[in-house]
Amino acid sequence: MPELIVYLLEGRSVEDKRALVRDLTGAVVKNLGVPQESVTISLVETAWTDKGKGGVLFADMKAR
Amino acid sequence: MPELIVYLLEGRSVEDKRALVRDLTGAVVKNLGVPQESVTISLVETAWTDKGKGGVLFADMKAR
Amino acid sequence: MPELIVYLLEGRSVEDKRALVRDLTGAVVKNLGVPQESVTISLVETAWTDKGKGGVLFADMKAR
Amino acid sequence: MPELIVYLLEGRSVEDKRALVRDLTGAVVKNLGVPQESVTISLVETAWTDKGKGGVLFADMKAR
Amino acid sequence: MPELIVYLLEGRSVEDKRALVRDLTGAVVKNLGVPQESVTISLVETAWTDKGKGGVLFADMKAR
Amino acid sequence: MPELIVYLLEGRSVEDKRALVRDLTGAVVKNLGVPQESVTISLVETAWTDKGKGGVLFADMKAR
Repeated sequence: MPELIVYLLEGRSVEDKRALVRDLTGAVVKNLGVPQESVTISLVETAWTDKGKGGVLFADMKAR
Repeated sequence: MPELIVYLLEGRSVEDKRALVRDLTGAVVKNLGVPQESVTISLVETAWTDKGKGGVLFADMKAR
Repeated sequence: MPELIVYLLEGRSVEDKRALVRDLTGAVVKNLGVPQESVTISLVETAWTDKGKGGVLFADMKAR
Repeated sequence: MPELIVYLLEGRSVEDKRALVRDLTGAVVKNLGVPQESVTISLVETAWTDKGKGGVLFADMKAR
Repeated sequence: MPELIVYLLEGRSVEDKRALVRDLTGAVVKNLGVPQESVTISLVETAWTDKGKGGVLFADMKAR
Repeated sequence: MPELIVYLLEGRSVEDKRALVRDLTGAVVKNLGVPQESVTISLVETAWTDKGKGGVLFADMKAR
């Protein structure tokens, strides 16, 4: 309470994920005044073939 | 804006995903009048053991 | 199977939603070869104060 | 941990929602062995004009 | 109708998933009165490095 | 890219939402190195009768 779902492309390091979860949690606690322990965050990674923008897969943009 | 999340069973080819993302984006642009570049789509694949319908895993239906 | 969740700003007409759901479903059936009846779509509308891009609420962009 | 999101059509009573959240939580605790307090459930209601199956809005099925 | 998305940490057995999907479906049918066949459930597993609570990754809690 | 969905209880002020979206976006840009403009955030509010923890609706906790 609250729960965050982050949809991102795969390939981030554990260090980046650790810092991301820490800072997102901090942003929630600061602005909503909820206990830190109540914040849950799930990072849902998708392959570059499984995400698109503007109708084009990221895998195909990468190839350009 | 908008963002689409598609929950589907794993096993689709990149060709199918490419065409799906292209056509879903086209359907959004046509009906909502938003710029094509603003449409983001994530395909979230789940294993056949991780999805169920009618209380039964798709993995178990497959076995039948 | 599959399920689509569409996150969009509120304010669309029922006509737009009807056509959007029809065309998104068509795109799924065409590219994944699933039965039309198996496609479920939820449109999750958010207020202009409840969605942001680039760190700015859409409500504030609108004001500009 | 885990977090459940339930996408349903609007119009359920508080009694139904209360019992649904109770029983869904029970099913998670029983099968995953997690503490009851760790289970969070959000019910995301959509209007009958904002959800479709088989390419048709539930609002239009209702009319039939 | 309805659709459930369950965000959980990876590592559950197929037996646990099978029973979880069965019991969650039962809880929905019992309380919402919908046909069993209409209930769809996706289990979205995340790695222990991809989920956090209280600003800390589950992978780091595990290490303690 | 990425997209964040935040599931929270209803009742926050626009000022809180504005600051939350700004700070969450900052946390993403800092840790993932993506352009600020690419970050999209949707706040999905649920009524106190539509969210539960530990098998109990927040509406019922509130009453205690």
